Amino acid sequence: MRRRPVSVALVHHPVLDKRGDVVTTAVTNLDVHDIARTARTYELDRFYVVTPVVEQQRLVARLLQHWREGFGASYNPDRGEALRLVETVPTLEAARFHWQRSAGEEVQLLLTGAGLADGMPFPTARRLLRETPVMLVLGTGWGLAPELFTPGMKVLAAVAGGGDYNHLSVRAAAAIILDRLLGNREE
Amino acid sequence: MRRRPVSVALVHHPVLDKRGDVVTTAVTNLDVHDIARTARTYELDRFYVVTPVVEQQRLVARLLQHWREGFGASYNPDRGEALRLVETVPTLEAARFHWQRSAGEEVQLLLTGAGLADGMPFPTARRLLRETPVMLVLGTGWGLAPELFTPGMKVLAAVAGGGDYNHLSVRAAAAIILDRLLGNREE
Repeated sequence: MRRRPVSVALVHHPVLDKRGDVVTTAVTNLDVHDIARTARTYELDRFYVVTPVVEQQRLVARLLQHWREGFGASYNPDRGEALRLVETVPTLEAARFHWQRSAGEEVQLLLTGAGLADGMPFPTARRLLRETPVMLVLGTGWGLAPELFTPGMKVLAAVAGGGDYNHLSVRAAAAIILDRLLGNREE
Repeated sequence: MRRRPVSVALVHHPVLDKRGDVVTTAVTNLDVHDIARTARTYELDRFYVVTPVVEQQRLVARLLQHWREGFGASYNPDRGEALRLVETVPTLEAARFHWQRSAGEEVQLLLTGAGLADGMPFPTARRLLRETPVMLVLGTGWGLAPELFTPGMKVLAAVAGGGDYNHLSVRAAAAIILDRLLGNREE
């Protein structure tokens, strides 16, 4: 199985809520399943679930155990195969550190969000992915908190559907972004 | 708000289960939410939830009522706006009939599935969408049942991520397909 030098991080803290306050969201099982399946389909190297909450980390560990080794592994091995990409980490910095060690070279974070019209265009991002290991950073809730957008941090342009409505689920946004960056552009 | 002459149908019967038997799957709330948000983002005209089970139709009606008019409508109006695209119908034929009446001209069904390597390439499908109203048909479970693939029925090529693993969720597949067919190709 080929693994591209690309990973994804799903951040549950620090993210914004509806009112714009910085919060920690709960891990949604379906996010982990869906994004793992998409990551596996696009041959990503790793999928980091970022949450500082120990009880939430335990929930993810139980989910992974069930599908990788428990009843789920024999009932539906495709799920286990996708979920083998998942690592649970307390912070985005821990995700970067973990992946950098396994990638063996400096990795580039690329933040994503629905309001980033002036972010890096997708063709530029595709070139970046050919040059260096890239970790795509997705926010849950109402998106990544401003404190992550430090000077020099690279951010990807928002996915736009054509109109003014832009409320994709993080599961849908992850799928579209990975397809735009890694899918066959002739299709 | 612009509405393109494109709709999507999410089929819960007839679809296949893991063993290849024809079954009726249960409606998943999150499918309705996610695909409605994606459909609204890409300015689709309608999103048909297809289930012959009356109790399931009632569940969808309750979900729609909550987010369109109930507490959800004031708590999160974006959800209500997306869910206004949803119609519940008992069969795919009913979806076609309903949409054809509102579109005012013959509509073209375009079936989708993970195993359809010899289906219509995406550039051809993009041209088709410019010529005629198209209803994209998505299967739940393990995909649309063979009985829907009647002679002359148009089918779209499968989304491929590059390797041999091809187990996207229907939520992710819907997002990728709509972006490939309607997204800005320069991005």
